[in-house]
Amino acid sequence: MAICFVSSKPNPLGPAVAAVAGSNRAISRPRSLTLQSNRPNAIFSSAVSQHGGASSPRSFTARCSLVSRPEYFPSHISDPGYVRIFDTTLRDGEQSPGATMTSNEKLATAHLLSCLGVDIIEAGFPASSPDDLEAVRSIAIEVGNKPAEDGHLPVICGLARCNKKDIDAAWEAVRHARRPRVHTFIATSEIHMHHKLRKSREEVVRIAREMVGYAKSLGCQDIEFSPEDAGRSDHEFLYHVLEEVIKAGATTLNIPDTVGYTLPDEFGQLISDIKTNTKGIENVVISTHCQNDLGLATANTLAGARAGARQLEVTVNGIGERAGNASLEEVVMAIRCRNQILEGLHTGINTKYIHSASKMVAEYSGLNVQPHKAIVGANAFAHESGIHQDGMLKFKGTYEIISPDDIGLFRSNESGIVLGKLSGRHALKSKLTELGYDISGKELDDIFKRFKDIAEKKKACN
Amino acid sequence: MAICFVSSKPNPLGPAVAAVAGSNRAISRPRSLTLQSNRPNAIFSSAVSQHGGASSPRSFTARCSLVSRPEYFPSHISDPGYVRIFDTTLRDGEQSPGATMTSNEKLATAHLLSCLGVDIIEAGFPASSPDDLEAVRSIAIEVGNKPAEDGHLPVICGLARCNKKDIDAAWEAVRHARRPRVHTFIATSEIHMHHKLRKSREEVVRIAREMVGYAKSLGCQDIEFSPEDAGRSDHEFLYHVLEEVIKAGATTLNIPDTVGYTLPDEFGQLISDIKTNTKGIENVVISTHCQNDLGLATANTLAGARAGARQLEVTVNGIGERAGNASLEEVVMAIRCRNQILEGLHTGINTKYIHSASKMVAEYSGLNVQPHKAIVGANAFAHESGIHQDGMLKFKGTYEIISPDDIGLFRSNESGIVLGKLSGRHALKSKLTELGYDISGKELDDIFKRFKDIAEKKKACN
Repeated sequence: MAICFVSSKPNPLGPAVAAVAGSNRAISRPRSLTLQSNRPNAIFSSAVSQHGGASSPRSFTARCSLVSRPEYFPSHISDPGYVRIFDTTLRDGEQSPGATMTSNEKLATAHLLSCLGVDIIEAGFPASSPDDLEAVRSIAIEVGNKPAEDGHLPVICGLARCNKKDIDAAWEAVRHARRPRVHTFIATSEIHMHHKLRKSREEVVRIAREMVGYAKSLGCQDIEFSPEDAGRSDHEFLYHVLEEVIKAGATTLNIPDTVGYTLPDEFGQLISDIKTNTKGIENVVISTHCQNDLGLATANTLAGARAGARQLEVTVNGIGERAGNASLEEVVMAIRCRNQILEGLHTGINTKYIHSASKMVAEYSGLNVQPHKAIVGANAFAHESGIHQDGMLKFKGTYEIISPDDIGLFRSNESGIVLGKLSGRHALKSKLTELGYDISGKELDDIFKRFKDIAEKKKACN
Repeated sequence: MAICFVSSKPNPLGPAVAAVAGSNRAISRPRSLTLQSNRPNAIFSSAVSQHGGASSPRSFTARCSLVSRPEYFPSHISDPGYVRIFDTTLRDGEQSPGATMTSNEKLATAHLLSCLGVDIIEAGFPASSPDDLEAVRSIAIEVGNKPAEDGHLPVICGLARCNKKDIDAAWEAVRHARRPRVHTFIATSEIHMHHKLRKSREEVVRIAREMVGYAKSLGCQDIEFSPEDAGRSDHEFLYHVLEEVIKAGATTLNIPDTVGYTLPDEFGQLISDIKTNTKGIENVVISTHCQNDLGLATANTLAGARAGARQLEVTVNGIGERAGNASLEEVVMAIRCRNQILEGLHTGINTKYIHSASKMVAEYSGLNVQPHKAIVGANAFAHESGIHQDGMLKFKGTYEIISPDDIGLFRSNESGIVLGKLSGRHALKSKLTELGYDISGKELDDIFKRFKDIAEKKKACN
């Protein structure tokens, strides 16, 4: 029998947060944020104050990560089970219609992502606008130069199409970070090469090779290359492009399912085939980037990890183009919760910051999270039906596989009970006891009947 | 190279809808609903008027389904590739905290589900309250007795715990339908039996067998049995329980991953193991019911179908307890879009009604859909970044694998373009042309620069 409650270890952040710059207050563990706040600043303040907090993004120092992780080398990870988390909330997430963030919002988010323990922050697409270049540069300077207490310092990455102008802009933005990365891409599927790029296979290979080489010539030692729409690309052609960019200096090869087309087995097989058939692949890190058009991004990402990918591209709340990306919280918690079946894979994420990060990103991006969003939705740890409430009151493991504390969510009501028309007598009595009323027998029967009458007509009764 | 655009066949609903009761108006195809409407009645009216519409739920006749499907027998499906869609929006969906619907709302939703072509509608949990019993009975009488033009008539199902009172209530509610089903369940995982039921394995088997037999003794010929928390149950014990309920008269065996714990391979293997090891399994239909706690419900459901399940339990918009269920639209569109790799699996869903159903359920349940929800989110078919807009303007297959028409969504802007800070010159020129301005050269450059200045500061520019 499997119960997966993530172990309630002593909070690893406790000793660290006491020393956060700008405050000498010691706090024992992160507090939950108010669910109702609509003010971005309130959210940032709350997130920061969880860690002993300074009041402005610029004075915030990320000294909150104590998760052990292998030393960073661009093309190699010494721990075979360690999976890098590459967060693209500020790039792919911000590309979502209506999600434009200000530079200050991006900087504040990057600070929290650093605290969350993200390995690589893709901070933007510097060639897209002068403001975006400036935002990425600020993040590179401020977030990319302040290691946490355990020495963790996120890589700061900028996106660039395969042309000199884009790569110049990306390098100019990220080079101020201690660990700068340029991520360049060009499409490799027939449909994209023919209709969008209007280029031949040979031209695409030449451009990819030359532009990776160009990024290297600027002094960049950490270069990611993505063959856009890899999920629909011809496999043999893909191996060829990847071999050429490895020779030119790429250190991470990211395999995007750009249009969210693949099924998990299929995507896992693609990663496995690339690992088997691409010369030089053992000298680089393989990455996944799965869009969610068919609702399969998380499953595809995990299938990629099982097949050998050791960098996973995700966004907080799963935001991104169209139906978004694999969501950080789903991927990270699935790896943590199902660690055994996933053969010991693990990440460096401080999961206690997941709830804060979700609230901040929802607020800044304007992309709300639906109540039934896995891990971070308002209902993810709430229970209304009588059968489930009965189980929760007896033993939480009956209906919860993750403890909400583990994502930094602290419920006012310990069992997450919401009274409604399907709630039973047991839950009502528990709620009354919580409110200070010791009621049973016929009196409870009467109240239960009146409660049910009201509950039939109202959405919630609390 | 794979492009999956669902074929734009002539609308199969055209001839059917002209004859809808209450109207003689012929309409050629469903129209899209307004995205802004906040009034449930407006939504229902729109959904109905799409089909030539009556103005009240009670006068609506579902004659809109022309999808071919095999004749209905409870325990057998003559077409080996046909997958039944069992919709539990009105039962598991309505169990979501805050999602209580009125009886009229449930009835209106059931009418639309019938039109959508759902095979089985789980209409509620009649023992939970007199109102719910009444709502299920109304649905059984009204929706469960009016076949569509192609003869399709959904099964109407009611949920019951394994006790006589629940089964009596469920049967009393559904027996008025031409195809009534009782769905009874009892937990089979150690954690549930020990902590919640406080019963031994032997007691659980005895109760399951007796209660399936009891439902049959009432005259019910279509009985579904679920071993709750099957995903965490001991496999050998599971085979044993299932064998016993088959002997007692169960016709569908539903395998729930009640807490959303399994990974796709694991869930597929569970279905496969049940198929191999359960005596008598060839005489019943195997079903899946996957919760979404780790974001894997859609992938797990598809893995179950590949392993032999021929009924899939889903909800519109994926609503349900905690992080919800597998979402109807994701499962159905993945099966349709990836039909080939899924070895010819197909459903009887009229996908043109997906958008309408999503709007109605969001409105009635109060559970909003996030903008990046796959298939039905506001951004699922919208494009803001310049690179994607450039692709969409050249050929839609570059960034869309499903045509929005196929889910009944008709965009005012054919390429789904939303102007924002990442939009390029090409998209701006296209938008200006749409507005009647023929601008190019230096004038376009000037406007583009001013547009970018504004776009940096605003969420969207349309």
